[in-house]
Amino acid sequence: NDADSVDPYLPYDGGGDAIPLQELSGRGGGAGASSSTHLLDLLEEPIPGVGTYDDFHTIDWVREKCKDRERHRKINSKKKESAWEFTKSLYDAWSGWLVVTLTGLASGALAGVIDIAADWLNDLKEGVCLSAMWFNHEQCCWDSNETTFAERDKCPQWKTWAELILGQAEGPGSYIMNYFMFTFWALSFAFLAVSLVKVFAPYACGSGIPEVILNITYTEKTLSQTALSLILTLFLCLGKEGPLVHVACCCGNIFSYLFPKYSKNEAKKREVLSAASAAGVSVAFGAPIGGVLFSLEEVSYYFPLKTLWRSFFAALVAAFVLRSINPFGNSRLVLFYVEYHTPWYLFELFPFILLGVFGGLWGAFFIRANIAWCRRRKSTRFGKYPVLEVITVAAITAIVAFPNPYTRQNTSELIKELFTDCGPLESSQLCQYRSQMNGSQAYPAGSDAAAAPGVYSAMWQLSLALVFKIIMTIFTFGLKVPSGLFIPSMAIGAIAGRIVGIAVEQLAYYHHDWFLFREWCEVGADCITPGLYAMVGAAACLGGVTRMTVSLVVIVFELTGGLEYIVPLMAAVMTSKWVGDAFGREGIYEAHIRLNGYPFLDAKEEFTHTTLAREVMRPRGNDPPLAVLTQDDMTLAELQSIISQTSCNGFPVIVSKESQRLVGFALRRDITIAIENARRKQEGIMLNSRVYFTQHAPTLPADSPRPLKLRSILDMSPFTVTDHTPMEIVVDIFRKLGLRQCLVTHNGRLLGIITKKDILRHMAQMANQDPESIMFN
Amino acid sequence: NDADSVDPYLPYDGGGDAIPLQELSGRGGGAGASSSTHLLDLLEEPIPGVGTYDDFHTIDWVREKCKDRERHRKINSKKKESAWEFTKSLYDAWSGWLVVTLTGLASGALAGVIDIAADWLNDLKEGVCLSAMWFNHEQCCWDSNETTFAERDKCPQWKTWAELILGQAEGPGSYIMNYFMFTFWALSFAFLAVSLVKVFAPYACGSGIPEVILNITYTEKTLSQTALSLILTLFLCLGKEGPLVHVACCCGNIFSYLFPKYSKNEAKKREVLSAASAAGVSVAFGAPIGGVLFSLEEVSYYFPLKTLWRSFFAALVAAFVLRSINPFGNSRLVLFYVEYHTPWYLFELFPFILLGVFGGLWGAFFIRANIAWCRRRKSTRFGKYPVLEVITVAAITAIVAFPNPYTRQNTSELIKELFTDCGPLESSQLCQYRSQMNGSQAYPAGSDAAAAPGVYSAMWQLSLALVFKIIMTIFTFGLKVPSGLFIPSMAIGAIAGRIVGIAVEQLAYYHHDWFLFREWCEVGADCITPGLYAMVGAAACLGGVTRMTVSLVVIVFELTGGLEYIVPLMAAVMTSKWVGDAFGREGIYEAHIRLNGYPFLDAKEEFTHTTLAREVMRPRGNDPPLAVLTQDDMTLAELQSIISQTSCNGFPVIVSKESQRLVGFALRRDITIAIENARRKQEGIMLNSRVYFTQHAPTLPADSPRPLKLRSILDMSPFTVTDHTPMEIVVDIFRKLGLRQCLVTHNGRLLGIITKKDILRHMAQMANQDPESIMFN
Repeated sequence: NDADSVDPYLPYDGGGDAIPLQELSGRGGGAGASSSTHLLDLLEEPIPGVGTYDDFHTIDWVREKCKDRERHRKINSKKKESAWEFTKSLYDAWSGWLVVTLTGLASGALAGVIDIAADWLNDLKEGVCLSAMWFNHEQCCWDSNETTFAERDKCPQWKTWAELILGQAEGPGSYIMNYFMFTFWALSFAFLAVSLVKVFAPYACGSGIPEVILNITYTEKTLSQTALSLILTLFLCLGKEGPLVHVACCCGNIFSYLFPKYSKNEAKKREVLSAASAAGVSVAFGAPIGGVLFSLEEVSYYFPLKTLWRSFFAALVAAFVLRSINPFGNSRLVLFYVEYHTPWYLFELFPFILLGVFGGLWGAFFIRANIAWCRRRKSTRFGKYPVLEVITVAAITAIVAFPNPYTRQNTSELIKELFTDCGPLESSQLCQYRSQMNGSQAYPAGSDAAAAPGVYSAMWQLSLALVFKIIMTIFTFGLKVPSGLFIPSMAIGAIAGRIVGIAVEQLAYYHHDWFLFREWCEVGADCITPGLYAMVGAAACLGGVTRMTVSLVVIVFELTGGLEYIVPLMAAVMTSKWVGDAFGREGIYEAHIRLNGYPFLDAKEEFTHTTLAREVMRPRGNDPPLAVLTQDDMTLAELQSIISQTSCNGFPVIVSKESQRLVGFALRRDITIAIENARRKQEGIMLNSRVYFTQHAPTLPADSPRPLKLRSILDMSPFTVTDHTPMEIVVDIFRKLGLRQCLVTHNGRLLGIITKKDILRHMAQMANQDPESIMFN
Repeated sequence: NDADSVDPYLPYDGGGDAIPLQELSGRGGGAGASSSTHLLDLLEEPIPGVGTYDDFHTIDWVREKCKDRERHRKINSKKKESAWEFTKSLYDAWSGWLVVTLTGLASGALAGVIDIAADWLNDLKEGVCLSAMWFNHEQCCWDSNETTFAERDKCPQWKTWAELILGQAEGPGSYIMNYFMFTFWALSFAFLAVSLVKVFAPYACGSGIPEVILNITYTEKTLSQTALSLILTLFLCLGKEGPLVHVACCCGNIFSYLFPKYSKNEAKKREVLSAASAAGVSVAFGAPIGGVLFSLEEVSYYFPLKTLWRSFFAALVAAFVLRSINPFGNSRLVLFYVEYHTPWYLFELFPFILLGVFGGLWGAFFIRANIAWCRRRKSTRFGKYPVLEVITVAAITAIVAFPNPYTRQNTSELIKELFTDCGPLESSQLCQYRSQMNGSQAYPAGSDAAAAPGVYSAMWQLSLALVFKIIMTIFTFGLKVPSGLFIPSMAIGAIAGRIVGIAVEQLAYYHHDWFLFREWCEVGADCITPGLYAMVGAAACLGGVTRMTVSLVVIVFELTGGLEYIVPLMAAVMTSKWVGDAFGREGIYEAHIRLNGYPFLDAKEEFTHTTLAREVMRPRGNDPPLAVLTQDDMTLAELQSIISQTSCNGFPVIVSKESQRLVGFALRRDITIAIENARRKQEGIMLNSRVYFTQHAPTLPADSPRPLKLRSILDMSPFTVTDHTPMEIVVDIFRKLGLRQCLVTHNGRLLGIITKKDILRHMAQMANQDPESIMFN
C-alpha cells in the first residue's frame, strides 16, 4: 500500500521547468484486496486537465456523477472542522436552489423584456407614436379619447409611416409608402440580426432546442454571446418561443458559473439546463407544469426524476416574474389565453381528428422538406452566404406578407385572433356574422350564425396566408438567425383549424336538419366554436412537427385553463403523432440533430433488431486488430506510437497480449495530458521509459530509465458486456447510464469495443441507410 | 451450427411418460462468430415454466424486456402471412391502448360507485331516509319543502335513529340513542370489513400504495379478491384515496389478463399498473395531471417516460367517467373543490412556513410512531388477533368521535368545511363572525371580522379533534383493513391550518395597526383567508408523511384551479419535506416496504459511501467459496448436490475451476425445471449424466450415459462489474436497469456476486443498522 508515497503530479503553478521529486519511498509489497488503496487513489491530487472535455463532446455521465459525489463527500467530511467550512457546506447545499431561483428570475425578466421589445419593434414596421416614441401602438392609444371599442386601434397620436411622411392616411400613394416602410424595416431588422449573430454568436442560430436536447458541451463564450445576441435579434423571429427556451438555458449556464458545484461538473450543469428549459417553456407559453413536462419529455435525456422538483420551482419563479411584468396587459402569461363558453359535442371529434391528420401530414412534410433544404444549404455553395440568404428571405417575406392582413400582423397576434371566440365585442373580420351586421347584441347566444361577406373574404385571405406560411416556414427554419418553430407551426394549425371550424359552423347552420346536427344543435343556437378548432389545429400541427405528446397537451391545456377541452386536444395530438410517425419517427429536433451529425441516441426510439454485441463492436471481420495497451510491458515510445496511429478516444488496458484479460480503460486525452505533465515535471522520463498501469512498478533491469506510472488515469471499472449480449440491451445500457463506450468480452477475454457512434452507425445500417452518410462532428 | 437439430424439449401435452427423440443429427463443428446460432437458440421452443416467477419475487427487467421484444418481432414477421395474422398484429398493437382505456373506464366507474356507497353508509350511522332507504341524507332532503338554506339538512323524511326508535329528536335519551347507534354501526361495519378481508383477500389490507410502488409479483387471485373486498370494506376507511389507487391497480391487473402481451410479461404488466395508479390518483383527487406525476414520482420505479402518455390517457378517461357519474353533485371530481377570492400577501409566507414545519414534524413523528407500533404488532402476540384489534380500534374511535361534531362527521366533509372560505351563505359554526351575527350580508367584503363565540368554541373542538386524529391515525394505519393515509393526513393538516388561519385573522383584526398588517390589510377589510391556511396545512402534512413534492403540489393545485396559490403551497411542502428529511429520509411508504422486508432499492435515496464492489459482493473474507457451475465437466448428481446445498437464486457458469473465466449465469428455478423436464421426457438421463452449457456436447467415454444440454437456460449476457467499481455506480446500474444480480470480476476472472439484497444489507450496515434486522420475504 503506498499510503505514504508522494504523488508525482503535484500541481505546480510555475510554467515549463521540471521540479525534481524525491521518488516514492516506503513502497511496501502490500497485497490483499483492501479498500484503502482505492481511497488513496482518490485522494491523490488530480492531474490538471484530466477529466475535462473538449467542446462539443458528449459527456461521460458515470464519471461526472462520481466526480460530484466525491466532491460532496469531501465537503461533508470537512464540514465539522470550522465555521468557515460549515458555511461553505451550507453554500454548497443551497447553491442548487440558488442557481435555479436566479435562472427563474432572469428568464422571467428577460421574457418580459423580450415580449415588450418585440411588440414595439413589430409596431415600428407600421408606424410610430408621436407623443412618445417608445410606446407601441396599443400603449400609444391608451390615453386616446376614442371610446368606441371597435375604434380602439385608431388614435391621433399613432401615425402610420404614410401619414407621417406623405401626410395622408388613405389612397394608393400612402399604401405604397406603408408597403415600402414595412419592407424597409423588415430588411433592416434582418440585416441587423444576422450581422449581430455572425459577429457575436455563431451558435445562436436556429431554435436552440436541439442543442439543449443534445447536452453537448458548450463553451462559456458561446452561450453568453448567444444570450446577448438572441435578445438583440429576436425581433425578426419566426417565433420567439423556441429561442426563449434557449435564452433561459443561457441564463442557467451563466448562473451555473457562479457556483463551483455546477461550473466544474458537466453532468450537474445539465441539471441546471434542464430546470432552465422548464423555465423557458413556462414563460414562453405561460405553462409552468407544461414546462416541467417538456423538460422531462424532450430535454432531460438522462435524469428525469432528480431535477423534477427544481425544474418545477424554476418554472414557477419565471412565471411569477413574467406575470408581475405583465407584458400583455391582460394579467396572463401569454397573449393568447382563451376561455370558451360552449361545450364540444361528440360528433365534433371527427373534424378534430381530421385536423390531427392534417397536423401529422404537415409535420411529416415539413420535416422532410426542411431537412432536404438544410442539407442542400450545407452541401452547396449557397450556404456560404448566410447574410444574403437571410436578407433574401426577409425581403420575400415582407413583400408577400404585406398585402394580406393575416400575414402582415404579428404571428402571435394572429394566433390570438384565430383562437378567440366571436363575441359581441369582437371587431374582427372573422366575426362578421349576420347577427352582428344587424347590430344584434344577442350573439353568441342569439340567432343568426350565418356568415356575412366579411367571413368569406377572411376565409380566402386565410387560405392564402396558410399557403404562404407553409412555404416560408420551410425555408426560414434553419436560417442563421435565432428563430423558433412553435409559433409558426401553431399559426399554420390555427389557420387550418379556423377554416375547418367556420366550415363546420356554416354546415351546421345551413343543414341543421341533418341527423348529427339535429341531435346536438338547436336551430339558430350557436353550437360550434371555430376558435376551439383553431386551438385544436394549432396543437395538432405543433405535435406533428415536434412529436411532443403529454407536454404539448398540458401546455395547451394551461392556455385554456379548462379540463373540458383536453379530450379534443388529445384526440388531435394523438392522431397527428400517429400519422406523422407513419412517415418517419423523428421529430424536427431529432432530424436537425442527425443533420448536424451529433452522436445522439434518441431515448424514444426503440431498438428492434436482433443483432448481438459482437456484430456491432469493432474490430469486425477484416478490420485491423483493436488498439490495446498492456498493463506493464510497454515503453513510452510504443504508447505514443499507438496514440498517434489511431484516432480512437480511448484504449482498453489488458493484462498481457497472451491472456487478453481486461484491466481497465484509459482515455486518449487523459494519457496525452499525463505524458505531457510527466515530461514537464518529472526527471528521467524518456522514450524508452516503461509505462505501467499496475499498482506497483514492474521489476526492471538496473540500467533502465525511470518508469512512468499512469494508474491514476486508468478507469478501473470500465463497462463490459459479453459478445452474446443482444444489442437491444446494449442500447438500453448506453441510454440509461449515459455511457460513451463499452467493452466487449467473451469468456473473460477482451474482444472489442462499442462506442455510441458505432451504435448509431449500426442503427443506420439496419435502417438501410448508408452508414457513411452519417457524419459526426 | 445446429440449424437442423431437433430440440429435446418439445412441448408435450400428455403427462408423465417420456417420448424417445431421435438425437441431434447433422451437428457440424461450426465455428465462427455468426449471428445465426443465437437466432436459432431463440427459436428453440422454450421449456414450459422457464422464465416465470414465483409469487412476490422481484422482476428481472432486462429479461422481461427482451422477452417482449422477441414476441413483438415474432408478430411483426408473421404479419404479412395472412389476414388473420395481420388482424392479430393489429390487436396486439392496440391492446396497450385498449387495456388503459378499460382500466380508466373501470377505475372511474368504481370510484363513482365507491363515493356514493361510502356516502350512504356514512349517513346510515346517523339515521335513515324513510321515503327511500337507499337515499343518503342529502338526497333524502332534496324534495323537502324546507327552503331556507341554513335548514337544508333538516327534513321530515330523514329520521335520526333516536327519532325512529324513541320517537323524540331532542333530549339526553335520544342523544344516548344516537350515540349508541353510531357506535353500533361503526362496529358492525368494522367487523364486516375485517371478516371479509380475512376470508377473501389477505393482501387487501393497508393502503396498497407500498405494494404498487414495489412492483412485486402478485398472483391473479390475490388481486382480484382485493378488488372485490376493497369495495365491500371501504366504508370503514380511514381515507378512501389510497385504496382507490389500489382498486385502480386491481382493475389494471384484471384487464391485463385479457391481453397476452401483458398477462405473460411482468414488465409490461407494470406499465399497465403504472397507468392504473395514475388513473387512481386522478379519480381520488380529481387531478389527472397530478395523477400522472404521482405515478412518475412514486410508482414508476423503472420506466418513467415510456408510459407517460398512456398514464395520462388513463387518468383522463377515469376523470371523465367520474365526472359523468357526478357523485358529489357539484360537477367536480372531488368533494373539496374550492375557489378563493382574495389574494395572499407576502407576510403570510411566515405562517405558511410554520405550517410546513408542523407538517414535517408531524410526518416524522407519525412515521416513527406508526412503524414502531406496526413492528410491535408484528413481533408480539397481539398481531395474532387482527379482528379483535380492528374491533377495538373501531369501538374506541366511535366512542370518542361521537361527542365532537368535527370527528363525528365524515373526514372528507370535514376537510371540505375547513377548506371553504366563509361566505354569507355558510352556516358552519366556523363562520360565526360578528358581521354574520348582526345579519349583515356584507361579509366577506364587509366590516366586522371579529370572531363570535361560535368560532371560539369551534377552535376548542378542533383542537380536541386534532389530538384525537393524531393519536388514532397512528394506530389505525396498518390495520388489517384497506385504509388510506391521504385523507387523515390532510384532515390533521387542515385542522391545524384552520386554527392558525383563524388566529392570524383575529390578530390582523385586533392589531391592524401593526406594521405588517397596516401595510396590507385595510381596517375592517378581510385580508386573511383561513380556508387557504387549511389547504396549505393539509398539503404540508401530506407532504411530511409521504414526502411527495411536485405531484402533491400539482394535486392540490388542481383542487383549487388557480396558479395564484402555488407559491404558498410550494413553500409549505418544501419546508415540510426538509424538516421531515432532517429526521429520516424515508416516507411512510418506503418505511412500510422496509418493515415488510421487500427488497426495494429506493430510487430517490442517494448512495453516498465510498465502498467498492468487492466489499459488498459475496463471498467475502471467511465465507465459503461461491457456488459455481462449470460449463462442461459436471455430472447431474454434482449439479443437484450444489443446488440442494445452497439457497441462492442462481449460479454463475465458468469455463473451468482453474481459469475462473465467466461464461454465463443460470437461474436455480430454471435449472430445476429443466432437469425435471429432461427426466420426464428424455431417456437415458441418469445421475452420472454429464451436464454441459456449451454449444456442443463434450467428448465423452463411449460407455457414459447420455449428456444433458442446458445451454438454452443459460443467460449468456450476465451483467458484470469489476471489483474496483464504486458501489455508487453499482447501485445506479441496479436501479436504472432493474437488475436482480450482478457478477463481479477482476481482470476477467469471476470473483463473486452482488444481489439486490446484498446491496440493501450493505446500505443498512453503512447506516449503522444491524443488517440482520432486515428481514426479507
